[in-house]
Amino acid sequence: MASVKPSVPKGMRDFSPIEMVKRNYIFDTIKSVFRKYGYQQIETPTMENSATLMGKYGDEGDRLIFRVLNSGVYSDKVQIRKDQFASISANLELHNQDTIPLRFLKNERQLTNELSEKALRYDLTVPFARYVVQHQNEITFPFKRFQVQPVWRADRPQKGRYREFYQCDADVVGSDSLLNEAEFILIYDEALSKLGLTDFNIKINNRKILSGIAEIIGKPELIVDMTVAIDKLDKIGLDGVVNELLTKGFTQQDIDQLEPVILLQGTNTEKLESLKTILASSAIGLKGIEELETIFTYLQSFSLQKATVELDITLARGLNYYTGAIFEVKTNEVSMGSIGGGGRYDDLTGMFGLKGLTGAGISFGADRIYDVLEELQLFPASNTQTTQVLICPFDKAGETYALPMLQQLRKVGVNAELYPAGAKIKKQLDYANNKNISYVVVIGSDEMQSGLLTFKNMETGEQQKLSAEAIVKAVV
Amino acid sequence: MASVKPSVPKGMRDFSPIEMVKRNYIFDTIKSVFRKYGYQQIETPTMENSATLMGKYGDEGDRLIFRVLNSGVYSDKVQIRKDQFASISANLELHNQDTIPLRFLKNERQLTNELSEKALRYDLTVPFARYVVQHQNEITFPFKRFQVQPVWRADRPQKGRYREFYQCDADVVGSDSLLNEAEFILIYDEALSKLGLTDFNIKINNRKILSGIAEIIGKPELIVDMTVAIDKLDKIGLDGVVNELLTKGFTQQDIDQLEPVILLQGTNTEKLESLKTILASSAIGLKGIEELETIFTYLQSFSLQKATVELDITLARGLNYYTGAIFEVKTNEVSMGSIGGGGRYDDLTGMFGLKGLTGAGISFGADRIYDVLEELQLFPASNTQTTQVLICPFDKAGETYALPMLQQLRKVGVNAELYPAGAKIKKQLDYANNKNISYVVVIGSDEMQSGLLTFKNMETGEQQKLSAEAIVKAVV
Repeated sequence: MASVKPSVPKGMRDFSPIEMVKRNYIFDTIKSVFRKYGYQQIETPTMENSATLMGKYGDEGDRLIFRVLNSGVYSDKVQIRKDQFASISANLELHNQDTIPLRFLKNERQLTNELSEKALRYDLTVPFARYVVQHQNEITFPFKRFQVQPVWRADRPQKGRYREFYQCDADVVGSDSLLNEAEFILIYDEALSKLGLTDFNIKINNRKILSGIAEIIGKPELIVDMTVAIDKLDKIGLDGVVNELLTKGFTQQDIDQLEPVILLQGTNTEKLESLKTILASSAIGLKGIEELETIFTYLQSFSLQKATVELDITLARGLNYYTGAIFEVKTNEVSMGSIGGGGRYDDLTGMFGLKGLTGAGISFGADRIYDVLEELQLFPASNTQTTQVLICPFDKAGETYALPMLQQLRKVGVNAELYPAGAKIKKQLDYANNKNISYVVVIGSDEMQSGLLTFKNMETGEQQKLSAEAIVKAVV
Repeated sequence: MASVKPSVPKGMRDFSPIEMVKRNYIFDTIKSVFRKYGYQQIETPTMENSATLMGKYGDEGDRLIFRVLNSGVYSDKVQIRKDQFASISANLELHNQDTIPLRFLKNERQLTNELSEKALRYDLTVPFARYVVQHQNEITFPFKRFQVQPVWRADRPQKGRYREFYQCDADVVGSDSLLNEAEFILIYDEALSKLGLTDFNIKINNRKILSGIAEIIGKPELIVDMTVAIDKLDKIGLDGVVNELLTKGFTQQDIDQLEPVILLQGTNTEKLESLKTILASSAIGLKGIEELETIFTYLQSFSLQKATVELDITLARGLNYYTGAIFEVKTNEVSMGSIGGGGRYDDLTGMFGLKGLTGAGISFGADRIYDVLEELQLFPASNTQTTQVLICPFDKAGETYALPMLQQLRKVGVNAELYPAGAKIKKQLDYANNKNISYVVVIGSDEMQSGLLTFKNMETGEQQKLSAEAIVKAVV
């Protein structure tokens, strides 16, 4: 065992101290903004009953859910049918095989359910829906909750895609006010501005407008194909979108109607005006326009810091899920996929039997935001999470001498360490450097005799002789 | 599906907003103290390769580790041997059975390893050891790390024992200085005092003293039985301990030697003096005494806030693990098991092939500390995590009127919410009460006309008319 080089499972990560400081900076910033807007934190267990998760994310999702093996003598519960044996035995003889895969004896799906009753959280939304239904009698609605926890997906790992990653969600249930949607835009604006981004775009659309468009073309049943196609405009261009639409059952006449919608230009107000004409005969389309107008009206009373808000009719994002507003956030400063998204869903808790509770929510893509801040060098150079002062004694006498000062530093709130006696000063300074410690205090026999300690600023290299009291004052 | 009442797996918990505020208060306090002493946070993945965890916690531990089912077509990898079939088939005929448990076809232990390559973190110590070995070339030693993450154990759930719970550990590796041990005592003292505890006891012992005692009795091979027995002194009394020792192979003569050690009384200094005489002929025993003396000497340079430190020769805690100091923390204010513990282990990373790296660490029992603070009502009444001001509009006009004030409050850093128009004031006030919101601003037509808004302190019930600007100033 000792010879195996230790590692983590593929797609999973350790986070070093320096990474944790940066990750905490992002999470703490987002959390503080969530709280400012009245969202409260909850946590749900890592494991849910399999029945809670299965079937909620489509077949592909089911496949990607990590299942936990039952504990105890679990294999007693897996029963192999006798009539499997006869045919299998014959087969074994026939092919002269020595072993046979378990799959031949038991359907794998059935096997999984007999082996496993629990599964790992796949996202934060379904556990939240389960939470709301389970605790509905303790909850005061509207319920504004945020949640920052890891989720797990048995996806093929690749650059930027992990099997364990944190989600960072805020949702409100039990309020149909569009003030919530407006505030989600404010939350994106405030959190991302606070993190130092200066140029980012919050795209907004409304599922009802997409429904309206499909309606006026006379192909409401093709709404999914339509939105999947036009959602790709950025990537495959207009020709690509048109080709895809043609293969999906749209006619050239449909496309003549769609094209001006897809290519809609102008300010948000201009776009809405155009849409009013285009969707004049669609009640649901007009409702979508009205909702967007209400959100824009709210936003007029607020001032945004750095975000621009753009109505984008091609935005779809998990369309079958959303029923009203749809959001997506992109930075213009580096090339990166969306760093946030969300929308309104009218029946979140229906899957657990609680009907008619409307909800809306947003999510921050923490890993991508991390990469953006790294690339733009926006992480603050100094922080309060690391050690500020390291005391470096030449010997045991220096160590003893340093103890009261060490306690004094901590007493006034300074993160401080004393390097235990016995190491060369060079090694101690390397330690300070590697740990990004701001100040070092060196204590040798001269220093103890004079009471003036060598105080070094590790960033500037500047060095002076100061008393212990003066040093404590200088670093507070 | 909708008819199944949603629930969480047994032994697992949801945390409500109010619980999260309290849990964060505990974790944030402990983390800030860890940081003050130079400990840096890391995180390791929820899943480890099974080989990393199995065999590290004894047979009982192995049984309690949650295993994750392999993803993909995992049952292909489970091969059933042909020669199993012949006998099983015959057996099936014989007993006229229709099905047979999988266990008859495949040894369960083998089956588990073929079904599962990954396991959930069982504690923070083994993943930390794995981390240190894996990243040894990136780490500056001594490496002081803390880690606050959940762990999972397939234990039988009972009051106060969960299948998912957070551990809260600080460890240092690569430094044999006893300053680390002294600082662990300071960390316990500072963190628990900061949480409001006023009377708690940090017990300390040293494995080498226990070895010395076993040595002078002439039964070094019985050290485990000896310490397991004397560790129970609190619970079963001296007679109980003596009886257990007799059944484990100790003679009456051994017990005559042990009794004065077990019943050692006096101050820490007096106990150490007695031990020096008792262990005079044991080199390892004297080494243990010397280590404790060094720790006590360090502590003389520091002043403790609320903790008392007590040398307790009966303290053993997972003896096979620790090689030097052993700690345990108990509060005297409520009846509760230990709320913290730790010690020094000389070969943490040896299990992953990196020898000779000494370590020491402590842990806080967050769930128990939560219960203690709850019982003593030590959670702060107010906190910065919840909404401070709720604006309650009578109608749509009030809502619109409130928007600039809402933004102003948030701009100056106040957590503020506007209740969306359309609900009765009574319902809005209930919302404020349930969410523990400190202040409410009511906006009706009178208020809008005069510009003087109704400002209510929800705690005192006091109510006054103030301008929006005055309210913003009042709540900052």
